[in-house]
Amino acid sequence: MASETPAKRQKSSKDVPYRLIYWPGFPGRGEHIRLALEEAGAEYVDTAHLEDGINDVLAYNSGEQPKDETNIPLFAPPILQHGDLVISQTPNILLYLGPRLGLVTDLENDPDGLYRINSLVLTALDGLSNEPHDCHHPIATGLYYEDQKEESKRKAEDYVKNRLPKFLGYFQRVLESKASGDGPWLYGGKLTYADLVLFQCLDGLMFMFPKATTKLEREGKYGKVFALHKAVAERPRIESYLESSRREKYSNGIYRYYEELDFEG
Amino acid sequence: MASETPAKRQKSSKDVPYRLIYWPGFPGRGEHIRLALEEAGAEYVDTAHLEDGINDVLAYNSGEQPKDETNIPLFAPPILQHGDLVISQTPNILLYLGPRLGLVTDLENDPDGLYRINSLVLTALDGLSNEPHDCHHPIATGLYYEDQKEESKRKAEDYVKNRLPKFLGYFQRVLESKASGDGPWLYGGKLTYADLVLFQCLDGLMFMFPKATTKLEREGKYGKVFALHKAVAERPRIESYLESSRREKYSNGIYRYYEELDFEG
Repeated sequence: MASETPAKRQKSSKDVPYRLIYWPGFPGRGEHIRLALEEAGAEYVDTAHLEDGINDVLAYNSGEQPKDETNIPLFAPPILQHGDLVISQTPNILLYLGPRLGLVTDLENDPDGLYRINSLVLTALDGLSNEPHDCHHPIATGLYYEDQKEESKRKAEDYVKNRLPKFLGYFQRVLESKASGDGPWLYGGKLTYADLVLFQCLDGLMFMFPKATTKLEREGKYGKVFALHKAVAERPRIESYLESSRREKYSNGIYRYYEELDFEG
Repeated sequence: MASETPAKRQKSSKDVPYRLIYWPGFPGRGEHIRLALEEAGAEYVDTAHLEDGINDVLAYNSGEQPKDETNIPLFAPPILQHGDLVISQTPNILLYLGPRLGLVTDLENDPDGLYRINSLVLTALDGLSNEPHDCHHPIATGLYYEDQKEESKRKAEDYVKNRLPKFLGYFQRVLESKASGDGPWLYGGKLTYADLVLFQCLDGLMFMFPKATTKLEREGKYGKVFALHKAVAERPRIESYLESSRREKYSNGIYRYYEELDFEG
């Protein structure tokens, strides 16, 4: 961790617990934030487990956020509060947390590492979170899945056949590259928050498309990607988190199971 | 600009021109990188204007990128080369360039500013670039618009009616907030790369949905967003860039004009 980064300089003034403002009832995008906090053993509060926590989410989500002279209005959860700072956007929150939680490479010697980690995260979220989300909402985010079932079927089938292998192939290439270093991780031979993001994306996809992901795993072409998923799940803190009640169950979030969309690819 | 950021520390070793690797023929996602470089008056090479420049794009796009021991494989253009560093993902490239080009606030006194600027960029790209892109590809990115015209019609109509006003409303709220400071800019009373991104998104949408954007502008509810567009277009370097041959014309990229999708909202 670079001792001169803005992140580090501010640490002393923000030695307070983190607060995650996110919907209850499904892992969703908030899960990427939780996994980083859990892996680091950080102290945090999660509105998903607070009575009335939903009120915070609803206020921010409707634009009726608290009067605030320094923070900009936020578009949607997940939201991270840390001291006076309130920020949103999953990859942005992770960019803030990564160096603070020790989930990056040695930025002192490799200052560009942060841009590589950030790029991996953005690509994973694009192809393995946003595109799966759109499989249930191809026509309109504001409409229910039930109102766009036929289009969902076509989109999910294309996703499983074309997009999912393309993105898994990309991450396999990254894991085979020199830059990934030794061991199961994406970059620099060290666990970073990009690994946690890829874990969660693949975990959700295994729930959403069990037939396709089982087939892809058996084929062996993306062995390193599936091995990364296993390696993250076996991290002691992650393992105990996944078994705890703090881990939300998959339901009506980004990754959903519909039998009619469970294509084999 | 914080003198201690990794960005600054590396500057001396990377005092070479920037190289943008991007498709020719339309502004696309590469345009956000061009606008930052142009506003800063930076020296750069753009493969869109090089003979054989397309070969670089195709190599990276197909995964056949050059052997490289330090950089990770990249998923897709836009790609920025700077010295030995090669990175991709639009918001990531901008995060790298912003502090180097002076297109951020004073990070020395406001180190959290970068997370606010990054958040604004991610939200603009989500709602005003990725969603418009999907209006022409609701079912599959790999299929032509012509193969999903009926679905495109439904998606574009929903976008114009529900999503576009929601995102413009968000940016209007940001521009009305204390945190935006004085003047036409989104954050801290100073032009940042977030303003350039919002400019380009709105500019593309004005081309794609002339009826809807004209109506929304006349309504006046999003006056500050349209005023920002005008203020960016009047920046001397941007104005001369937009008139130059370096500015690609809208055609078959993210922002396209189809009469049948030109809904009024």
